[in-house]
Amino acid sequence: MEVLEKPDHLYLEVASRIESLIDKGALKIGDRLLSVRALSKEQGISLSTAFQAYYYLESKGLIEARPQSGYYVKFSRQLPFDVPAICEPTDEALPVSVDEMISSVYHDLRSPKLTSFSLSAPDASLLPAAKLNKSVIHSLRNEPDHCLSYEHIQGNEKLRKQIARLSFNWGGSLSEDDLVVTAGCMEAISFCLQAVTKPGDAVATESPTFYGIFRVMQSLGLKVVEVPTDPVTGIDLNYLQQALDRFDIKACVFVPNFNNPLGSCVPDDRKKQLVDLLAKKEIPLIEDDIYGEMYFGKTRPRTCKTFDKKGLVLHCGSFSKSLAPGYRIGWAAPGKFKKQVIQLKRMNNVATNTLAQVSIAHFLQNGRYELHLRHLRKALHTQSLKYMQAITEYFPESIRIARPQGGFVFWVEMEKHADGFKLHKQALKHNIGIAPGQIFSAQGQFHNYFRLSYGMPWSEKVEKGLRTLGELIRKQ
Amino acid sequence: MEVLEKPDHLYLEVASRIESLIDKGALKIGDRLLSVRALSKEQGISLSTAFQAYYYLESKGLIEARPQSGYYVKFSRQLPFDVPAICEPTDEALPVSVDEMISSVYHDLRSPKLTSFSLSAPDASLLPAAKLNKSVIHSLRNEPDHCLSYEHIQGNEKLRKQIARLSFNWGGSLSEDDLVVTAGCMEAISFCLQAVTKPGDAVATESPTFYGIFRVMQSLGLKVVEVPTDPVTGIDLNYLQQALDRFDIKACVFVPNFNNPLGSCVPDDRKKQLVDLLAKKEIPLIEDDIYGEMYFGKTRPRTCKTFDKKGLVLHCGSFSKSLAPGYRIGWAAPGKFKKQVIQLKRMNNVATNTLAQVSIAHFLQNGRYELHLRHLRKALHTQSLKYMQAITEYFPESIRIARPQGGFVFWVEMEKHADGFKLHKQALKHNIGIAPGQIFSAQGQFHNYFRLSYGMPWSEKVEKGLRTLGELIRKQ
Repeated sequence: MEVLEKPDHLYLEVASRIESLIDKGALKIGDRLLSVRALSKEQGISLSTAFQAYYYLESKGLIEARPQSGYYVKFSRQLPFDVPAICEPTDEALPVSVDEMISSVYHDLRSPKLTSFSLSAPDASLLPAAKLNKSVIHSLRNEPDHCLSYEHIQGNEKLRKQIARLSFNWGGSLSEDDLVVTAGCMEAISFCLQAVTKPGDAVATESPTFYGIFRVMQSLGLKVVEVPTDPVTGIDLNYLQQALDRFDIKACVFVPNFNNPLGSCVPDDRKKQLVDLLAKKEIPLIEDDIYGEMYFGKTRPRTCKTFDKKGLVLHCGSFSKSLAPGYRIGWAAPGKFKKQVIQLKRMNNVATNTLAQVSIAHFLQNGRYELHLRHLRKALHTQSLKYMQAITEYFPESIRIARPQGGFVFWVEMEKHADGFKLHKQALKHNIGIAPGQIFSAQGQFHNYFRLSYGMPWSEKVEKGLRTLGELIRKQ
Repeated sequence: MEVLEKPDHLYLEVASRIESLIDKGALKIGDRLLSVRALSKEQGISLSTAFQAYYYLESKGLIEARPQSGYYVKFSRQLPFDVPAICEPTDEALPVSVDEMISSVYHDLRSPKLTSFSLSAPDASLLPAAKLNKSVIHSLRNEPDHCLSYEHIQGNEKLRKQIARLSFNWGGSLSEDDLVVTAGCMEAISFCLQAVTKPGDAVATESPTFYGIFRVMQSLGLKVVEVPTDPVTGIDLNYLQQALDRFDIKACVFVPNFNNPLGSCVPDDRKKQLVDLLAKKEIPLIEDDIYGEMYFGKTRPRTCKTFDKKGLVLHCGSFSKSLAPGYRIGWAAPGKFKKQVIQLKRMNNVATNTLAQVSIAHFLQNGRYELHLRHLRKALHTQSLKYMQAITEYFPESIRIARPQGGFVFWVEMEKHADGFKLHKQALKHNIGIAPGQIFSAQGQFHNYFRLSYGMPWSEKVEKGLRTLGELIRKQ
């Protein structure tokens, strides 16, 4: 029998039925939809109508296509949560205050009992241990001196070439000579900050942002100007413009791609505006791009370095979130501050671990990194959706939650009277780790927030952890 | 035939003939003497007389016994050189000035053409690559997460236990909890300095000493008070006492065992005096003990930490000079400043490379380190004597040279008008690397000195290098 199609209505009708399944919870976030071919067969519609139906649902943000995998439910109106509000910090440049909370949260992460939602990093099971081990053993056996000797101060040349190649993915054109290898991204940020500031200087950063950034500023005697950050589009450029007019800001440290803890991503055109804005005032921008490769969208977001013409952007990255946290290999592309960064490295620790550098270089040379990243992105995206589904089920409706576009974490806002640090203490009694909101601000703001990592693959343990966490939040 | 012995004379007579062979150069520094048994047989004397002869020569400092190896020529009066004079620095606390010379010297150490006498480190051929590789492969395969995860911020617990055990050799009793693992000794010193000083503080150090110490001080905005150092007994306590009275010294950074570049060793009783002197004024002492295991004498020299009762000694060490420079594993035992050092590590690079820590721990647990150290000490001592012999032959008699009691380097004084940096430039044209004296002082003193490493095993290339160097010195 021939299928009679009314193109304007039929795809809408099919789409509307799928939408209603999603609304009712019959199709949950993360569920895979029928293939286009199967849908066509099942509903007795043409392939193109089936496509149109999915395309329409995708445009509404309800489902999404994943390359070589099919269509998945992405969003449900059942999700009762709004995204967190932008939080305006008090508008004075304050000296950073230390937070003992961090020690409490990160005191003992290696306990096997712990269900840890507190680390913004992938679970070890998501990392390509066997293949990377092969590269290590190859390096041990084939490199001169078996990797026992000091490496070049700027870092292993082969590794720098591979990192330079990665820059093409974000529209960059770095050469190996532009790069300085460091012991992780935190060291890169620390050296870059020291290269462009002196004690007492004011430095702008996002609010909220990674506590390590505040810690290093505190330790260097810097003053922090916190700039409010939108949970979707990142740093507020208008506020930044005002802050630049009001304070004598000497540098900025931003995480434009998948800010930790927000998961926000500054759109590429705004990155360009940001770079131009700072270039006008000759203000260096330290760009922490540690999460840039962990995007859930179709393409790698650009970086601020992509738009840097004056050498004012000090781009920092790392393999700690994507390949091997324990190897401690990161890098800086410090633009015109390269010489200062090298000097800081010379005086701090001279060279970075040779074996780790050579092994990662070998892993990348063999094309293994791109392949691994594709798997990792897909796994993280799926995990984020699974977690979100459980949160919908177990957390009270009063919470607000950011929708990360990449990275490892959810930023959760509780009711005003709730306390993230108290929640951490209570959760720890149940062997559950979270990161309280207070540690993501220099001023101890965000007391009613917490950060929840979905770096651990979905499991019963995870589900139980989220259920318990939901109960604890309700009690608050 | 029965041997008639005249005990009071016979051993003296035999000894005197051996002495004359040494004086004439028939027996050279580093040459092995006949065994006691062979000497007894050859000379028709009793074993005890042969022993007495050697014992007498040993007491005169001409020969030395090496365990399980026999007697060797240690010193020759033919050696025409005196030890360098103690150099009194100008007595003001000056801000540290940068030295571009360091970049010139350490620009390209990995060139295969270079005969490098510029690195105070063992040649890779002296390191136990095969056995250490086994430990790496074992760790890759057997450790949880294949060493991919972040390590404990204080460092791998097994490794800290092993380092604590090493402390027994120098009369210490550290526990794993006293230690913080770092990316090499330089990082340990840098963190320790930051823990006990603030910019503008005055810090006492030896003169000459390792340029890295001046660099880190400069970078931290500290002022340096240089304390003259004896080529044999190290830091001048009288001068230090005066300096403490005259300047408001907030900390000291000393290398008591085998100061680099002098090779001097502070006698253990003076170490105690030094610790007591500083304890009276509550001044922290950062002790760089990176060369402590590379002793040529019979026992491991003690450390200042051995005599520390108040937690004021921040002891720093490393495996970079003895096992694996490229692994970047060092440590600090920061006494009562442990908390600050951990905080500095947290803000700088969070954790140290996991694989390197676990592998070295495994290597040590299996007792391989002690065995390797015995071989390494013997090799270095022999090399030092071989080099000294060649220096005697090829260098002009006008030079003065320190006799290192351990470590990797000779400190050579040329005539007043000579210039170490010029010599470095000229030597580099012949593909020879040395370290000019100027870089071992904050004030650019020691222009007519240079440091010569004997870390490379003896070879024709080394001999040719020393001959050329001798010619270049003569031309100056």
